Amino acid sequence: MKEPSAKAVINHMLKNDRFSAWLGIEVIEMSLGSCKISMTVRDEMMNGFNIAHGGIAFSFADSALAVASNGYNKLSVALETSMSFTSPVKSGDTLTADATEISLTNKIGVYHILITKQGGVTVGSFKGTVYRTSKTLLKP
Amino acid sequence: MKEPSAKAVINHMLKNDRFSAWLGIEVIEMSLGSCKISMTVRDEMMNGFNIAHGGIAFSFADSALAVASNGYNKLSVALETSMSFTSPVKSGDTLTADATEISLTNKIGVYHILITKQGGVTVGSFKGTVYRTSKTLLKP
Amino acid sequence: MKEPSAKAVINHMLKNDRFSAWLGIEVIEMSLGSCKISMTVRDEMMNGFNIAHGGIAFSFADSALAVASNGYNKLSVALETSMSFTSPVKSGDTLTADATEISLTNKIGVYHILITKQGGVTVGSFKGTVYRTSKTLLKP
Amino acid sequence: MKEPSAKAVINHMLKNDRFSAWLGIEVIEMSLGSCKISMTVRDEMMNGFNIAHGGIAFSFADSALAVASNGYNKLSVALETSMSFTSPVKSGDTLTADATEISLTNKIGVYHILITKQGGVTVGSFKGTVYRTSKTLLKP
Repeated sequence: MKEPSAKAVINHMLKNDRFSAWLGIEVIEMSLGSCKISMTVRDEMMNGFNIAHGGIAFSFADSALAVASNGYNKLSVALETSMSFTSPVKSGDTLTADATEISLTNKIGVYHILITKQGGVTVGSFKGTVYRTSKTLLKP
Repeated sequence: MKEPSAKAVINHMLKNDRFSAWLGIEVIEMSLGSCKISMTVRDEMMNGFNIAHGGIAFSFADSALAVASNGYNKLSVALETSMSFTSPVKSGDTLTADATEISLTNKIGVYHILITKQGGVTVGSFKGTVYRTSKTLLKP
Repeated sequence: MKEPSAKAVINHMLKNDRFSAWLGIEVIEMSLGSCKISMTVRDEMMNGFNIAHGGIAFSFADSALAVASNGYNKLSVALETSMSFTSPVKSGDTLTADATEISLTNKIGVYHILITKQGGVTVGSFKGTVYRTSKTLLKP
Repeated sequence: MKEPSAKAVINHMLKNDRFSAWLGIEVIEMSLGSCKISMTVRDEMMNGFNIAHGGIAFSFADSALAVASNGYNKLSVALETSMSFTSPVKSGDTLTADATEISLTNKIGVYHILITKQGGVTVGSFKGTVYRTSKTLLKP
């Protein structure tokens, strides 16, 4: 029996991820510990100031964290996250998240995720720490 | 002419907040610098592990940040946020957010928000920093 | 054999903590999961703007995190910390840190620590997450 | 009259920074918005577990934040910082901090700083947000 690929694990995880589906997330690239994903911002994601609710860019980054950290087939859950908001996001904007692994030990992974919009403007910087459980996502 | 009340300002803000409406947020209490809000978690908010996507509790806390910080009628936007996830959230759970002001200067406000579910179990701890612009939300 | 008290565990830990000694930290109160500590800021702690270096208030909060989280006699190390700086600190100021436990599971503890100076002015708000190892600090 | 160089501004700032001097910080490289600095960890920086107190790596990163953000000759102070601790630091270790600017607006700058020890092992990941005042450090 061989280990399932990161791609198989993440496809299995995303198939059941209803909120990431609501966000409209697409995976552009992924490998163990990193990914690039995208989404397009819609009217129903706006806050009371007619810019995207902060929860939208955060949720998008949090999905990138799940994609980057779970490819090892070791169920990983966010313990700690922080996000800097650097530029407003509007309806129609296309967001891209680039996730990079900063550290990985048996129990803990740390990831940095940069969120940009079209034109390459940074809209947010996210740091996330996951706890790596001993459960698998797909049976080997 | 007199200043609009915090309640009038926040009602105006929330009236246009489509994503908070999608979340199903209700304001239980609010005054200048603090609030208590609630929401009920739904199936479409689940992630690939059948627990609530981290973005849901974060978005809920971020709405509490907007309610607590904007009652002064000084448009305030999140600069920095951090969230600790301490217990999983499931579909059907009722969440409550309690926001407290930790510091307020002319330009910057800092808030601590505790998220609990039914039974008083803490599911998250959120810290948010807002930049206070010179724009009003409602004309005096 | 009985478990050592939180006080005995923390006294043992602090006896060897050379940097907390350099800071001049005194424990005012402590129990399982919480503490109040104080220190006085000195000239050699200033940065290039003649206010206390940000590392001073952070280090002070980080010591409070160690005191609050290690009393269970389960060696606990910081995984994640965040700090908001809300008011400048000067030489001669007396700082107080109040640590509160927000969540505690077998492996993870989350603490909120408020830093004030004389007059009760908040100078910082700190959130820290520790990983609880299976090592003891004192033999039972 | 011409603007002072970033190097002149930072040298002026560090000349008065007593706590960075206590840490033993040396600037290896610096330009507007970025820097690389180093320091060697000493016995008096240890905590009660005989590893470096968390405040040491944080303080080191916070000095890197000051060096990277103040070269514009616009006095900048930390509002918000977060730090992930990924590997223990011991006495004798040589630390290097690499600071990168993630976003810069008129009032706010966001920086990511990676802390490594000899051998390139990551010991911490720091994110810092500064408020950019209208004061200068050196007269033009």
